[in-house]
Amino acid sequence: MDKLTGDDIVRMFVAIATILVAARIFGEIARRLAQPVVLGEIFAGILLGPTVLGSIAPELHQFLFPSKGAVALSQDAFKTLAIALFLLVAGMEVELSVMWKQGRTALSVGLMGIALPFALGFGAARLAPDLLGATSSVSPETFALFFATALSISALPVIAKTLMDLHLYKSDFGMTVIAAAVFNDLVGWLIFAVILGQIEYAHGPTHHMPIGVTLAVTAGFAALMLTAVRWLIHRTLPWILAHASFPTGVIGFALALALAGAAFTEFIGIHAIFGAFLVGVALGDSAHLRERTRTTITEFVSSIFAPLFFGSIGLSVNFITNFDPVLCGFVLAIACLGKIVGCGFGARWTKLSWRESWAIGFGMNARGAMEIILGTLALQYGIIREPMFVALVFMALATSMMSGPMMQRLLRTKRATRIERFIHSRTFVPRLRAIDRKSAIDELCQSLAATSRLDYARISTAVWEREQATPTGIGNGLAVPHARIDGLTQPFIAVGLSEAGVDFGATDGKAAHIVFVILTPASDHSTQLELLADIGRTFVQAAARERALKLRSFTELLAFLRTEPTAA
Amino acid sequence: MDKLTGDDIVRMFVAIATILVAARIFGEIARRLAQPVVLGEIFAGILLGPTVLGSIAPELHQFLFPSKGAVALSQDAFKTLAIALFLLVAGMEVELSVMWKQGRTALSVGLMGIALPFALGFGAARLAPDLLGATSSVSPETFALFFATALSISALPVIAKTLMDLHLYKSDFGMTVIAAAVFNDLVGWLIFAVILGQIEYAHGPTHHMPIGVTLAVTAGFAALMLTAVRWLIHRTLPWILAHASFPTGVIGFALALALAGAAFTEFIGIHAIFGAFLVGVALGDSAHLRERTRTTITEFVSSIFAPLFFGSIGLSVNFITNFDPVLCGFVLAIACLGKIVGCGFGARWTKLSWRESWAIGFGMNARGAMEIILGTLALQYGIIREPMFVALVFMALATSMMSGPMMQRLLRTKRATRIERFIHSRTFVPRLRAIDRKSAIDELCQSLAATSRLDYARISTAVWEREQATPTGIGNGLAVPHARIDGLTQPFIAVGLSEAGVDFGATDGKAAHIVFVILTPASDHSTQLELLADIGRTFVQAAARERALKLRSFTELLAFLRTEPTAA
Repeated sequence: MDKLTGDDIVRMFVAIATILVAARIFGEIARRLAQPVVLGEIFAGILLGPTVLGSIAPELHQFLFPSKGAVALSQDAFKTLAIALFLLVAGMEVELSVMWKQGRTALSVGLMGIALPFALGFGAARLAPDLLGATSSVSPETFALFFATALSISALPVIAKTLMDLHLYKSDFGMTVIAAAVFNDLVGWLIFAVILGQIEYAHGPTHHMPIGVTLAVTAGFAALMLTAVRWLIHRTLPWILAHASFPTGVIGFALALALAGAAFTEFIGIHAIFGAFLVGVALGDSAHLRERTRTTITEFVSSIFAPLFFGSIGLSVNFITNFDPVLCGFVLAIACLGKIVGCGFGARWTKLSWRESWAIGFGMNARGAMEIILGTLALQYGIIREPMFVALVFMALATSMMSGPMMQRLLRTKRATRIERFIHSRTFVPRLRAIDRKSAIDELCQSLAATSRLDYARISTAVWEREQATPTGIGNGLAVPHARIDGLTQPFIAVGLSEAGVDFGATDGKAAHIVFVILTPASDHSTQLELLADIGRTFVQAAARERALKLRSFTELLAFLRTEPTAA
Repeated sequence: MDKLTGDDIVRMFVAIATILVAARIFGEIARRLAQPVVLGEIFAGILLGPTVLGSIAPELHQFLFPSKGAVALSQDAFKTLAIALFLLVAGMEVELSVMWKQGRTALSVGLMGIALPFALGFGAARLAPDLLGATSSVSPETFALFFATALSISALPVIAKTLMDLHLYKSDFGMTVIAAAVFNDLVGWLIFAVILGQIEYAHGPTHHMPIGVTLAVTAGFAALMLTAVRWLIHRTLPWILAHASFPTGVIGFALALALAGAAFTEFIGIHAIFGAFLVGVALGDSAHLRERTRTTITEFVSSIFAPLFFGSIGLSVNFITNFDPVLCGFVLAIACLGKIVGCGFGARWTKLSWRESWAIGFGMNARGAMEIILGTLALQYGIIREPMFVALVFMALATSMMSGPMMQRLLRTKRATRIERFIHSRTFVPRLRAIDRKSAIDELCQSLAATSRLDYARISTAVWEREQATPTGIGNGLAVPHARIDGLTQPFIAVGLSEAGVDFGATDGKAAHIVFVILTPASDHSTQLELLADIGRTFVQAAARERALKLRSFTELLAFLRTEPTAA
């Protein structure tokens, strides 16, 4: 029996743990810098790969990430499983019904968003193949087809995530972008599938399907998955829920189906991810898939398999020696031009305002994960060389980075105002000494004055005056004394907990155990309301209020605010 | 680069999907027969392995589960990851604090539950090594040590699951058994770790630690994990919750830690699972690990990795050719004798009743998963031969099967009475025609009479008389007309949904949209109350009642009742 030795197991586990930890750390750093998490995950892989670790500690790099042997094979197996599962989850996020609802606009944006980048990419690859570093291992047409496709595909998961972050996901605007991206993705992957099929056909002796057959089987499989199989899944799920243990039965069914789909598309000569994605679409579309099951699969896969895959991208390529600034600039320029103009005009054509049209263009421009998966496969199949791979990754990251801020600017939206952004460790008082509302307000205002340039007398007077006008006890043990202060440029918040409770005149007669002092700029009318609404939402559950009273440190408070599920 | 070919990927995915589906199906069949799920999962592997599939279709078996090459290595890698993650989850279920609370009894049961089976096993292995099929590849002492340990370890996950199924988990009795099992497991695994260390030392040139050092490092590592590392994790979790994305940050942290722990114990010469288990104990003990995170990890791992591992057990051994009835009977007999008598006397010694003491003995006797993992490792390391492996698996399954029923009989408990057990497809009326309570009761009683030997006039009169005494509208759109009928041997339930609503005189004035007619035996006082309580629990949430009104088929109703989280 071929088995892993103890040494192999140590290396395999240490390598996975290292990728996971590094990807998470740099993912978090990216998030802090208001960038997509995937950016940080890929950067972590670049650090662990030949670019950095491989050049400063080649032996450690070879020990953890060998290119040959049982450990290399097991890592490739995990990576392959990771992409398949990630695409399953990406497919589950697709809402097919939305595509029909936003019909015309989505179709127009989707089509133009493919047509223009595709034309530009194909033209550039035929006119300047040397600039783009075309390889001789595939025909110039195949290379041009691939390059055109790589510029045309959007990154549905990144787009969906960005829209959610901006609270635009459930809006008409958001649904249009998502519908267009779904359409875009399906067509783009189909084209790519055909290219891969063509290459497999030219190279491998394993599959002997002519291109027409591959195309027909692929289209037939996709159509079947989105109609009959989708219907069958919808019918089968209640049966599984009724007769198998929950949620074990459904999760096992979902994964087995995804792997079977992946194996099938791999078998017909296109890549495994395609089948997993289509299974995801068909599964995610069923109303019988319980929210809890969806969450379990999505959370586990995006916590473990997504970082594992994206963290592995940088492990094989040296991003410094293969960095070609001219190539990167050129690819980025035509990618942005094609996508933003194409989608923008597609949207404008259906009578949307210019401003919204450009916002859609920038939204669709995000390439993120998908382009990188495409590039990884193209590199593996010898369609492109390392410098082009680096340029594609660079383009994917750059377009994803500009997507959110540009949409935000064009639509004049802003991120939700949450209290956690304005609470600091020194304005959290875990045990209030005060026994009445005047002294509670004073105590919290003191903590604010001690950690900022605010004048203690001025703010405490303002809050107390407002408090005397109407008591700010809002019931359920909460009080929110507040004031708008001239000359502030941002909100200031102090939080105090009182075990004994302080009477803030709440209509339910209960003493306040959690007291927020909220100061907002006098000129800003909405922020105060948003902060009060956020407090209301966070503490709406009695269980949440009970947990809040047990908080003993600032870190615990922050952990509480960040993980308490609010009715967002 | 060593990479999987397209062909490898197809085989790998098809194999995983096959194991998953087969393990799930036979797991469900086992559950239907009121047996532990793990039994069915192992049986599925036996069917797919050399025992059945390998002898009827050797080529298909070699295609899916080859013993050599990249596919065999990748399957071994998945299997290794699966055991590690399963042990992480098993560790997370351990409640350390319980061990101290149930202190004396748990210690007495735990110690006696190790001492007697250990002594019996060691004695038997020294006196009759040939009967037990001792191998010459290890010393007789090592073989005896292993056999003694294999008889001494309980299966914490199986025990916990059985107690939960019987609603005994949170009772004093349940906690005592769990505490004893935890103690038992920790000591048992430590002994096994030492044995493995000894063998690695004797065989491999990789690790040169003398046994004393292995023991010291193992004990030190365990102590460190359960004290300092446990404290550190408890301190670190709020920080991760506060500063990393949720739940991605925590899940990534948990898995990375588990793999690091696994790698460390593998490195010091004992098996990877030991480190993953200790990380699980340390992690699970922290109150900062959110329930939702715990659920996500547990559900995913037990849906995917547990069936994958247990379904793989049968893949390498032929259970028919290696089945030795004398050996199986002998191993089972001394295993049961040692454990039941040891634990029983241990419990009785601390003044528990004989009945409870024997119940504890049978509870602790369940070997399930743990013994099988132990056996797998022993086989891999050459400590035992196939017939002994088969005997250990047989013993593990047999002891697990008798555990639940024997505890139930000794403690005179019964499984919770849930409505789903008494609803049948033809007593579910998705659209009630009735507009008043009399006709609603009649309509549902008709469906009951039509599908059983019940007399329509008799039951409808009884229910209507009871209804006239006090209306059975219990508010929130629910009504529960019911009666106790002479001569019934089991409850009968009919369910009707009414979109318009039927007035059942509820105190909240709301019409009933969901109507249950409940008939119970006249002699049985408690069942009626239990069924009414179950209905109350199931529909306590407004969202659940809304979903219930949309049910259109019996399968959907059953799916609803089985997956709706009740406040159990």
